[in-house]
Amino acid sequence: MWMPSQLPEIAERMESAGFRGRAGELSELARPPMNAVVRVGGGSGAFVSNDGLVLTNHHVAFGVIQYNSTAGRDLIGEGYIAADRAAELPANPDYRVLVTTGFERITDRILADAHGKRGRDYFDAIDHASKAVVAECEREPGLRCSVANMYYGTDFHLVKQLELRDIRLVYAPPGSIGNYGGEVDNFIWPRHSGDFTLLRAYVAPDGTPAGYSPDNVPFTPPAHLPVSTRNVKEGDYAMLAGYPGITYRHRMASEFEGQVEWQLPSRAALFGRMLEVIEAETADDAEARVLYASQVRSLLNGLKRARGELDGLKRSDAVAARVVDETAMLAWLEGQSDAATIRTDIYAARVVLKQVASTRERDQLLATLLRHTQLLRAAVTLQRLAFERGKPDAQREPGYQQRDEALIEGQLRQVQRRYAPAVEQALLADLVSQYLALPAGQRVAEFDAVFGTTAEQARERIAALYAGTALGDEATRLAAMQADAVALAGSDDPLLRAAAALQPALLRLEDEFKTHEGELLRLRPAYMRALIGYRQSQGRAVYPDANATLRVSYGRISTLDPRDGVRYLPLTTVQGIAEKHTGEEPFDAPRPLLDAIARGDFGGTAEPSLGTQTVNFLTNLDTTGGNSGSPVMDAEGRLIGLNFDSNWESVSASWMYDPRYKRAIHVDMRYMRWLMAKVYPAPHLLAEMGLPAE
Amino acid sequence: MWMPSQLPEIAERMESAGFRGRAGELSELARPPMNAVVRVGGGSGAFVSNDGLVLTNHHVAFGVIQYNSTAGRDLIGEGYIAADRAAELPANPDYRVLVTTGFERITDRILADAHGKRGRDYFDAIDHASKAVVAECEREPGLRCSVANMYYGTDFHLVKQLELRDIRLVYAPPGSIGNYGGEVDNFIWPRHSGDFTLLRAYVAPDGTPAGYSPDNVPFTPPAHLPVSTRNVKEGDYAMLAGYPGITYRHRMASEFEGQVEWQLPSRAALFGRMLEVIEAETADDAEARVLYASQVRSLLNGLKRARGELDGLKRSDAVAARVVDETAMLAWLEGQSDAATIRTDIYAARVVLKQVASTRERDQLLATLLRHTQLLRAAVTLQRLAFERGKPDAQREPGYQQRDEALIEGQLRQVQRRYAPAVEQALLADLVSQYLALPAGQRVAEFDAVFGTTAEQARERIAALYAGTALGDEATRLAAMQADAVALAGSDDPLLRAAAALQPALLRLEDEFKTHEGELLRLRPAYMRALIGYRQSQGRAVYPDANATLRVSYGRISTLDPRDGVRYLPLTTVQGIAEKHTGEEPFDAPRPLLDAIARGDFGGTAEPSLGTQTVNFLTNLDTTGGNSGSPVMDAEGRLIGLNFDSNWESVSASWMYDPRYKRAIHVDMRYMRWLMAKVYPAPHLLAEMGLPAE
Repeated sequence: MWMPSQLPEIAERMESAGFRGRAGELSELARPPMNAVVRVGGGSGAFVSNDGLVLTNHHVAFGVIQYNSTAGRDLIGEGYIAADRAAELPANPDYRVLVTTGFERITDRILADAHGKRGRDYFDAIDHASKAVVAECEREPGLRCSVANMYYGTDFHLVKQLELRDIRLVYAPPGSIGNYGGEVDNFIWPRHSGDFTLLRAYVAPDGTPAGYSPDNVPFTPPAHLPVSTRNVKEGDYAMLAGYPGITYRHRMASEFEGQVEWQLPSRAALFGRMLEVIEAETADDAEARVLYASQVRSLLNGLKRARGELDGLKRSDAVAARVVDETAMLAWLEGQSDAATIRTDIYAARVVLKQVASTRERDQLLATLLRHTQLLRAAVTLQRLAFERGKPDAQREPGYQQRDEALIEGQLRQVQRRYAPAVEQALLADLVSQYLALPAGQRVAEFDAVFGTTAEQARERIAALYAGTALGDEATRLAAMQADAVALAGSDDPLLRAAAALQPALLRLEDEFKTHEGELLRLRPAYMRALIGYRQSQGRAVYPDANATLRVSYGRISTLDPRDGVRYLPLTTVQGIAEKHTGEEPFDAPRPLLDAIARGDFGGTAEPSLGTQTVNFLTNLDTTGGNSGSPVMDAEGRLIGLNFDSNWESVSASWMYDPRYKRAIHVDMRYMRWLMAKVYPAPHLLAEMGLPAE
Repeated sequence: MWMPSQLPEIAERMESAGFRGRAGELSELARPPMNAVVRVGGGSGAFVSNDGLVLTNHHVAFGVIQYNSTAGRDLIGEGYIAADRAAELPANPDYRVLVTTGFERITDRILADAHGKRGRDYFDAIDHASKAVVAECEREPGLRCSVANMYYGTDFHLVKQLELRDIRLVYAPPGSIGNYGGEVDNFIWPRHSGDFTLLRAYVAPDGTPAGYSPDNVPFTPPAHLPVSTRNVKEGDYAMLAGYPGITYRHRMASEFEGQVEWQLPSRAALFGRMLEVIEAETADDAEARVLYASQVRSLLNGLKRARGELDGLKRSDAVAARVVDETAMLAWLEGQSDAATIRTDIYAARVVLKQVASTRERDQLLATLLRHTQLLRAAVTLQRLAFERGKPDAQREPGYQQRDEALIEGQLRQVQRRYAPAVEQALLADLVSQYLALPAGQRVAEFDAVFGTTAEQARERIAALYAGTALGDEATRLAAMQADAVALAGSDDPLLRAAAALQPALLRLEDEFKTHEGELLRLRPAYMRALIGYRQSQGRAVYPDANATLRVSYGRISTLDPRDGVRYLPLTTVQGIAEKHTGEEPFDAPRPLLDAIARGDFGGTAEPSLGTQTVNFLTNLDTTGGNSGSPVMDAEGRLIGLNFDSNWESVSASWMYDPRYKRAIHVDMRYMRWLMAKVYPAPHLLAEMGLPAE
C-alpha cells in the first residue's frame, strides 16, 4: 500500500516484478493512470471513457441501485441498462465521485501550534490547523479538501479532491450476477461474481461540479483507463490503485492483543445479535426486509469479516509475531542516541491505551447505537448540528460544518428508505439492554436518565419516544435542520428532547476521546520513528497505514495454497457458475447467463489456454476495505480487472500482512466485456469504452 | 482393472505411460511381482519380506487389532509393535491371507451341462460343475479354490489360492494415525492417514498352511516386493495390483437407472436408520460401543459411500451416458450377422431384471436383517448347516460345505466380540417394522408368522426370542453346530425354532433368486458379446467387471480438479496433520507424532522438492472396494505406496469410470518408513524389509 510518492524509491523492485512503465509517472497524481483513479461512494473506481463513465463494483454502487429500485422496478434483481444518456438514473443525493487533484506535505503547518501541548490541547491544535487549511483550500469551488494523517501523527498531507455530485446509474448486471454467491461466497475463492457497475459523473454545463440537474453534461475526466483486450494468465504482473480505508499494521503489540482477545469476538457477538433482532422483526414484513436489506448486508459482511479476521490472526500467530517484532525493535532502539525520549513516549502511549480499553464495552455499544439507528441518529445529529451552528464555522466539529450540511440533508432525506419503526425500536432496546448490563463504572448518567435502568424500562421508554416523535416524517426532519439551537433544545418532540438530554454526555465522552487521541497523536510518532528506523536497519521501507488516501500495490496473478494438498487456481470460469447454480439465492444464475454458458458462445473474450470464458481472477495485491472497485492494471497500465474482495484467509490483513495467505479477488474485464457483448448487451457502452462489439 | 493375462495386449499403452518392465512378466501369476500380491481379509496386501511379512491397511487389519484389544490393552488406540516374533499376536481364527497360485480358463467344462437349460436348471448346472471343479482342486491340501465368472457368465476361470490361516499382528500404528481423520476424512482428499499395518503369515513347520500353533514358523513367500527408497512426484508412473471386489460398469442401462433412482437412496436411508438405532442403544453403554465399533464403522462407511456414489453418478450423468451408449450399441448390433439372437436374449434379460426389481425393498430388508445381526444370523446359519449336511458334501450350498465349516465356527466363536443383546433386539425390531410396512405382495408368510404383523408384536416377540435363547453362550452355539438336523429342528431354543420356521421361506426365496440368476447367467453373455464387439469396433478392449480376482491398473501420480478454480495437489505432507489437528477425535494426532513434526527430523524419508515429510499421495489408478491394501508400484515394480481409499468424487466409479474424477489415495511408503524409523520405531522390521534405519 505504497503512497504514489514512494514509488520511485521502489521502482527497481516493481520493474523486477514485471512492471514495464516508469514508476516516476505513477507517482504523479496529475498524470495518467493516477488521475483516472477515483474515490466512489465508500470505495474506489476508475474513469473508463472520455465522457465520465466510471467503473466500480456492483456492491459499491449498491446504494444507487437500491435508491432507484421500487416495488414495480426491481433494479437490484433485474439489473439496468440505460439505453441512452437520457435513461441514466440519478444516484442518491449524497453519492459522490471524488477525483484527487493534489497531495501536499503540510506537517510543519499542522503541528506548528501543537508543540509543547498535551492531550485535548494537542488534539485541538492539530484540529484547528487542519480546519484552517481545509477552509482555505475549499475556497476554490467544487473542491473537497482534507488533511491526511500519515504514520499516526508523524506527517500530515493536504488532499485536494474534485467533488462530483451528479452521479448516474448507467449499467448494472442483475443482482444474481453482480452478487452471485452472496454471503455464502463472500470472502471466498474460487469466486464467480460479476461485481461491477458503470456510473457516469455529470457536471454543470460550465464544467464545474454541481448537484443533479437535467441540464448537466457528462464530466470530461483528466484521463481514463483503457480496458485491456489482451489475455491474462497466472504469473502476469498486476498492480492496483485505490483508496484503502484503514489498516492497523503498525499498531502496538498491546493493540494486537486487544483486537484478538476482545474486539473481534465481541464485535462478532454484537453483530450476530443485531442480525437476529432484524430477522425476527422483519420475518413477516416484506417491506421492512427491503428497507433493511442494505443494513443486513453490511452486518453480515461485518460479522463474517470479524470471524475471518480472528481466524486469520490466530493462524498467522499475529499477536506473538507483533510482540516478538516490537521487543526486537525496542532492543534495537537501546543502541540509538534518542532511545531515552522515544522510550518514554512509547511507554506513555501504552498507559493511554490501557485507559481507553477500560471503557471499550460501553464505547462500542454507544457507537453502535448511534450508527445503526435512523431516527435516533437523526435526532442526535439535528441537536448536534444546532449546537455546532452556535460557533463560527471554522470551529465547528468536523462533519457539522457548512460544507457537511448537504451530506447531512442527504442522510436525513433517505431515512425513509432504510427505516421501519418496529425494527429500529427492537434494535435500540436490545442495544440499550446490553449497555444496562455493564458494570456501573462504564455507565453514563444521561443515558440511564433517558432509557431507565432496566431492560423493561428501556423498552417502554423507547416505545414512548417512537410513538411520540414526528421525526419519521421527512419534512419534519428537514424543517428541524433549519431550527435554531434554543428552539430545538426546547422541542416538544420526545426524540429530540431525548437527544438534547444525551448531548452533554456525548460531548463529554467526545472530549475524553479527543484527550486520549491527542495524547496518542503526540506519543505514537515516537513509536513510528523507532519502527521506521528499525526497518531501515533491516533494509526495508515502511508505508503509512492506510487512511483512505490513494495508494498503489503491485504483484502478480497468483495461486493460493490455503491448506496442505489444496491449490486454488487463479482464474475461474463460467463452468463454475453452472457448477454452483442451484436455482436458489444466492446461486440463482439468471437463465440468459446459463443459456449463454451452455451455448459456449464466448468469441474474443474467452481465455484461449482454458478454451472458455473466465469470470474472476486472483492476485497477491495488497488491499483492504475501500479498495473495492480499485482498477487492476497490467504491466502497461491497461485495465485487466476490477478488485472486489479478498479471500477468506486474508481478511486479517488489515492488521497483519501474511504473504502466504494475502490475496485479492477481481472481476476479469473479459467477463464484463462478454456479459455486455453477449448476455445483457450494451454495444453503445462497449463502443464508448473503445472495446470490440464481442 | 485388467486381468494380468490381458497385459501383453496393452503392453504398448503401458510402456508409453512410463512402465519400464515387461508386461509379459506381469501377466504371470507365478512370477514376481504378481506372486507377492495377496488377498488379505476382505482386501489386498503384499509380501514385503522373505519371512512372510504382509503389508496391508490398518482398516483391513482392523478386525485383527480389535480382536487383540481388551479393556486393559487398547491396541486400537495405542497401536502395537511386536518386539520380536514371540510377541506377534494371533489374528481372529477366520482371518486369512490367500496367495493366488493358479488362474485357468475352464469355460467349456463349467458350461458343458448348462447348454439348453434355463433358469434354476441353468444355474444349478453351472453350480454343480463349479463345485466339482473346486472339490477336485481342493484335494490338494492347503489350497482354496474358486470359480471366477468373467463377463457375466461368458467365461469361467478356476482360481487356485494357497490358504494361509495363521496370521499374526506385527506392527500397527495408533488408531489416530492409522485412521487419522476418521469418518470425517473418509473418501476425502487431501488426506493424512497412516493407514497401514504389518502382519505375518505362519505355516506348519513342514511349510504347509495350518491354523494357529505356537510351533508354526514364518511362511516363506514365493516373492516379496522391495519397498522403494526413491522419491516420487507428480506425473510419475504408478501401477497397482490387488483384488477389486465388484464393479458394475457393464451392467445394463435399466440397472444404472435402478441404482440411481432406488438402490443408493434407499441404502443410505436404511444405513442411517441402523446407525441411529445403534447410537441410541449404546449411548450409555461403553462396553456395547466397543462391541459395535466395527459394525458402526462399516455402516458409516457404507452410508457415506452410498451418498457419494449417488452424487457422483449424477455429476457424471451416468444414467443418460449408459442409455446413450447402450442405444448406440444396439444400433451397431443391427448391422451384425447374429443380431436377432443377441437382441432376443438382451430383451429377455430386461424382463428378468424387471421381475427382480418388483421385490427389491423386501429383499434388501431381509438380507440386511440376516447380515447385520449376530444371534439371529447364528441361528439361521446353524439350521441351514444342519439341513445342508443332509446332502452329499458336493451338493451342499456353497458356504455350507465341509470346507466352509471352519469359517462358520470362527464366526460362531466371535459373536461375543460383536454382540450386545439390547442393541441386536433394537436393530432387529426396527428392520422388521420396516418390513411390516411393505405392501402385502412383498410380504412372506413365514416371517409374518415368526415376527407378527405389527411393529408392537414384533418388538414383543423379538424380546421373547432373545430372553429365551441360549445361543448367547458360545459353548451352546458350538454344540449346536454338532447337532443333527432333526434335533436342531426340534430344539426348544426359541431362536433356533424361529430359524427353523423361517428356513422354508429362505430356501424358497433363494430358489427364486437362483432362477433369476440362472436366467441372467444365460442371457447376459449376449449383452456382453454385443458390448465387446461394439467396443472392438471402436478400437477398445474390455476388461471384465471386477469379481475379487487379481487385477492390475496403471496410470500416474495425478492432481485432481474437483471443481472450477480448485486443484488438489497429489502429495500431502505432515504439515497437513498439524493443520487438521484439533486434539479431538478424529483429528487427535498423538503427541509423539506432533512433536516429531515440530522437530522436522525427517532424514532420508523427506521429499526433497517439498523439504518435508510426505504422508499420502494421489494417483489416477482404477480401484474399487477390495483394492484396500493393494501395493502401488513404480515403473520398475518397487513398492512406493499402499492403496487405502478413493476420493469422494470417484466413489461412483464402481458403476461408471469418469477419468475427470477417478483417483485413488495411497499411503506414501516414505511416511511408513519415517513413522517406523523416528516416531514409533521398529528398527528390526525396517531391517527385515531391507530398509535403511532412517
